[in-house]
Amino acid sequence: MKNINIPERLAALRSAMDEEQISFFLASSSDPHMSEYVGDYFKVTEYLSGCTSDNVVLLISPEEAWLWTDGRYFISAAKELSGTGITLMKIGEPGVETAESVLRRLLKAGQTLAADTSCLTALSGMLFSRIAASCGAGFRDCRGFIDRIWTDRPLLSSHPVQILPDAVTGASCETKIAELRRRMNGAAALVITKLDELMYLLNLRGRDIACNPVALSFGIVTAENVHLFIQDSERTAEFDAYAAANRITVHPYEAFFAELQKMTFEGPVMLDANSVNFAVWNLLREKAKIQNVPSPVSAMKAVKNATELSRSREAYLLDSAVLCRFLFWIKRAVKDGETVTETSAAAYLDKLRSEIPGYIELSFPTISAYEENAAMAHYSASEEHPVVLKPEGFLLVDSGGQYLTGTTDVTRTIALGALTEEMRRDFTLVAAANLALLTARFPYGCTGRNLDTFARAPLWARGIDFNHGTGHGIGYILNVHEGPQNISWHMVRTRPEAVFEPGMITSDEPGIYREGEYGIRTESIILCEEDETTPFGRFLHFTPLTFAPIDLDAIDPAYMEPADIARLNAYHAEVRKQILPLLADEAEKNWLIEATRAI
Amino acid sequence: MKNINIPERLAALRSAMDEEQISFFLASSSDPHMSEYVGDYFKVTEYLSGCTSDNVVLLISPEEAWLWTDGRYFISAAKELSGTGITLMKIGEPGVETAESVLRRLLKAGQTLAADTSCLTALSGMLFSRIAASCGAGFRDCRGFIDRIWTDRPLLSSHPVQILPDAVTGASCETKIAELRRRMNGAAALVITKLDELMYLLNLRGRDIACNPVALSFGIVTAENVHLFIQDSERTAEFDAYAAANRITVHPYEAFFAELQKMTFEGPVMLDANSVNFAVWNLLREKAKIQNVPSPVSAMKAVKNATELSRSREAYLLDSAVLCRFLFWIKRAVKDGETVTETSAAAYLDKLRSEIPGYIELSFPTISAYEENAAMAHYSASEEHPVVLKPEGFLLVDSGGQYLTGTTDVTRTIALGALTEEMRRDFTLVAAANLALLTARFPYGCTGRNLDTFARAPLWARGIDFNHGTGHGIGYILNVHEGPQNISWHMVRTRPEAVFEPGMITSDEPGIYREGEYGIRTESIILCEEDETTPFGRFLHFTPLTFAPIDLDAIDPAYMEPADIARLNAYHAEVRKQILPLLADEAEKNWLIEATRAI
Repeated sequence: MKNINIPERLAALRSAMDEEQISFFLASSSDPHMSEYVGDYFKVTEYLSGCTSDNVVLLISPEEAWLWTDGRYFISAAKELSGTGITLMKIGEPGVETAESVLRRLLKAGQTLAADTSCLTALSGMLFSRIAASCGAGFRDCRGFIDRIWTDRPLLSSHPVQILPDAVTGASCETKIAELRRRMNGAAALVITKLDELMYLLNLRGRDIACNPVALSFGIVTAENVHLFIQDSERTAEFDAYAAANRITVHPYEAFFAELQKMTFEGPVMLDANSVNFAVWNLLREKAKIQNVPSPVSAMKAVKNATELSRSREAYLLDSAVLCRFLFWIKRAVKDGETVTETSAAAYLDKLRSEIPGYIELSFPTISAYEENAAMAHYSASEEHPVVLKPEGFLLVDSGGQYLTGTTDVTRTIALGALTEEMRRDFTLVAAANLALLTARFPYGCTGRNLDTFARAPLWARGIDFNHGTGHGIGYILNVHEGPQNISWHMVRTRPEAVFEPGMITSDEPGIYREGEYGIRTESIILCEEDETTPFGRFLHFTPLTFAPIDLDAIDPAYMEPADIARLNAYHAEVRKQILPLLADEAEKNWLIEATRAI
Repeated sequence: MKNINIPERLAALRSAMDEEQISFFLASSSDPHMSEYVGDYFKVTEYLSGCTSDNVVLLISPEEAWLWTDGRYFISAAKELSGTGITLMKIGEPGVETAESVLRRLLKAGQTLAADTSCLTALSGMLFSRIAASCGAGFRDCRGFIDRIWTDRPLLSSHPVQILPDAVTGASCETKIAELRRRMNGAAALVITKLDELMYLLNLRGRDIACNPVALSFGIVTAENVHLFIQDSERTAEFDAYAAANRITVHPYEAFFAELQKMTFEGPVMLDANSVNFAVWNLLREKAKIQNVPSPVSAMKAVKNATELSRSREAYLLDSAVLCRFLFWIKRAVKDGETVTETSAAAYLDKLRSEIPGYIELSFPTISAYEENAAMAHYSASEEHPVVLKPEGFLLVDSGGQYLTGTTDVTRTIALGALTEEMRRDFTLVAAANLALLTARFPYGCTGRNLDTFARAPLWARGIDFNHGTGHGIGYILNVHEGPQNISWHMVRTRPEAVFEPGMITSDEPGIYREGEYGIRTESIILCEEDETTPFGRFLHFTPLTFAPIDLDAIDPAYMEPADIARLNAYHAEVRKQILPLLADEAEKNWLIEATRAI
């Protein structure tokens, strides 16, 4: 449907580009906060291309148009771009030119490259403006330009902000701000543009992005003041009283850049060039010494306090119990020949989850992917083309919830019936990988690059790998993906690696994906805890927050070492101990006992 | 003996400092090539302090003197500094101030910090000069200043250089220079100050540093020329003909800085600020655009060609056979009550090794350390205080040779008799760690930070760690320690991590050290090889070059997984297959068969 309008929209854009003497227009799928998911207002690349991917760079010249996205979206983007005249550029595929390379090749002296700098990171903005300069071309900020053609652009999302009581957050915003100022270590100001960081710091929550309980906002923390920029429509009387009590100066969201422009700073201004947008960077570099450091708020937020931990444990127990009930139901329903589809299975789970006390919303749209569909990362089941589950093969279900007690995330791959030898081998290796990381002990100082080997070694031994990270940080009543910790073996030079600290909550989600056949992922959420300090140093370990059986119907002990079997049995014993008291139904109880039996 | 002169030498230095208006004199144990070991001429810190450590920074003010060294040398340095008035500063110990901190605290405006900039790395030179500037003080290069008081300074080492034929190197220097120019990627010049890099590139060898077959030299490679700076006394008629044939312009070693000063460069000059000295850096930054990159020669040198590999395999087989004969001898001799000391054991091994065809010298002084002595890194047995070996506990022997076929390095820890339960456990864990890395399979792109987890995981699981790297690169008829690859879990921000490539030769040497009790290390040398390329990517693995039994008398299978036992048995089967044909003596043969039996 949408695609029909794309050529018209591109024509309108090119006409506006011509009027403004813009030779190349660059757009990204980001918002000014570098959110992973964005509100409809910021879906400029989707408006112009029809492509719904959330990692897009779109480049438009008078004659051509290119859209870059990553491997998760190659299949969907190809469908969406069909007939638009936009060339799909598959990031990382051999022989595929980068946006930088296309610009270096085509930009001519005297031409102009234009972009909304508020939706580019400082790092990519610097890169593109350097390329323009090296070609003798200009680089122009064109915030608002898109409004000339996007006349029915949606409004900015807006919902009243919520204030979380200290009993929920475990620390007042006053305490957090004091700790932040200590970590600012003499800097005159810290500019906060990431929405989850501001929500965490000020103990606020919003509803402006689906699944992410955040409010559109900017923040500037100085030694004396906390400036919060938020839409007037999101303020309530309670919020105004709270802001006044906490000496938070509230400004309109739209006033952020103008107010920042007016401010003067007596010392260096801290920000993180990995997340701050290029408009902020450009504005500040003319008036202040920039101190580009990993965000101290991100580091504070990652280490959960005692309240956050005890509530999260509760959230994970109830969420795990619901998942167990779902596993019981779906294995039986499919075996009994009931008609269950990918989407109806997800709906069943979503409904169970919604009945948990304190449920707010899903923490991301449930992924329910059967057989070869599970080999596609970010597969989205469609109600128009229902996929009926058969009593064979694997169903992969990745899901989670937002609760007043925390944010959950869990993946289980379920054997619906007959499996091949290779399926059982792969499933067993993934289970061994998951459990090897879960039970790892390691010295303080390790980062995710050291730890990833625990999970990948069992797969690597058989020439298998998977193309996503093994672990991401998880927010507390916040985004299901957060940093700074990250478990991945790849070296990323631009991003500093975070050392694991007790109190960090991280996912443990190895997988094996065979294109056109099946996909397996086993994801439990793990908490980093203090271990013992020995004469050799201080050690840490993980403990699981997720308690749900790993499907024994798909385990082949022939592919496990005795240590792997011991780990699986120990984990299952713990699942039984934690979850059995939470189940009421006898059939469910009996199933759980069987599903967690020692092998 | 030496210590008697230290106060006199310091007094003479301070008097000269006073005349030259130097407030702080800084010296390091390096030479201008940042060699790990240096010739006597460069032992300035030893002359001034009596301290023989090879990682020293010495700072002298009119009133005080401080010497920094690392944990390997705390015990020996404390002895050597006793009575000198120099304060030992233990690097990394809690509460111990750094040299930077002492200078920041004490340097006053108008004062002068002086150092021989040719013996500081560019990175540390920049740091110290920035500190001086921040204090309002000056930073002065004082090359030659030490000669005012060190009147009996030894001459620079000098030995005729040797030319290695292509049959030994596997690649002519012409081929290597052509490849290097390709990697220089348009840079106007590459400055080479590391001795082993120049020896590798030009297929030369020297004898100017004990155990390191290198000649003192500097090199500058441009698109048209190769400039080699070497002492006239090292040139032979053969060398001159070789240089002429290969269009190498030869200059006196002493003329390096003056010639570099005279040169002009039409483009960027490549160098590695981690290894180039500060004098070179200062000279170049005024006249050229510096391109600070990891050395392309180091990357070339690390990947051994087919000739280097086949000759190294031969060297390791013969070296391993000699080690096996030593293991047979020492276990029997100590059991039979013969008087064997740490030093006589080392001498026995050194003599066996010297009889191998093509033997040049040891690749480092043999470490022979009994019981608690083995818990001290870099322990050096003393002939004056002989330690007699008893039929109990562990002897650790770390040794290697330089041959015309390659450079070897190997450590075995030998059970001389009764062991405690803890000793057997620790020994078994170290064996499991060594074999886990040796048998690792991993995707292309891994660095030593990913791989170290293979070795450390079995130790970490029991709260054990060791304070040295698990692996270093090894030269070919060159230094026993080389880069760029390195197996260590620690993050070092200043040093880029090298990806493992097929053809790299690396050590695999986990250990456990219990202070005052014993030390265990098992070191085999491993070659990185191509594994299969699967649908999941390109994989690599290691294969051993070292074939010597891991002492089964100290193995307790209770601490091994079945996979560990399988690895040990497979390794021992290979040891037997490779070494048995190389032994002549029946008793030795029978012992090897027993020592490599499957458990």
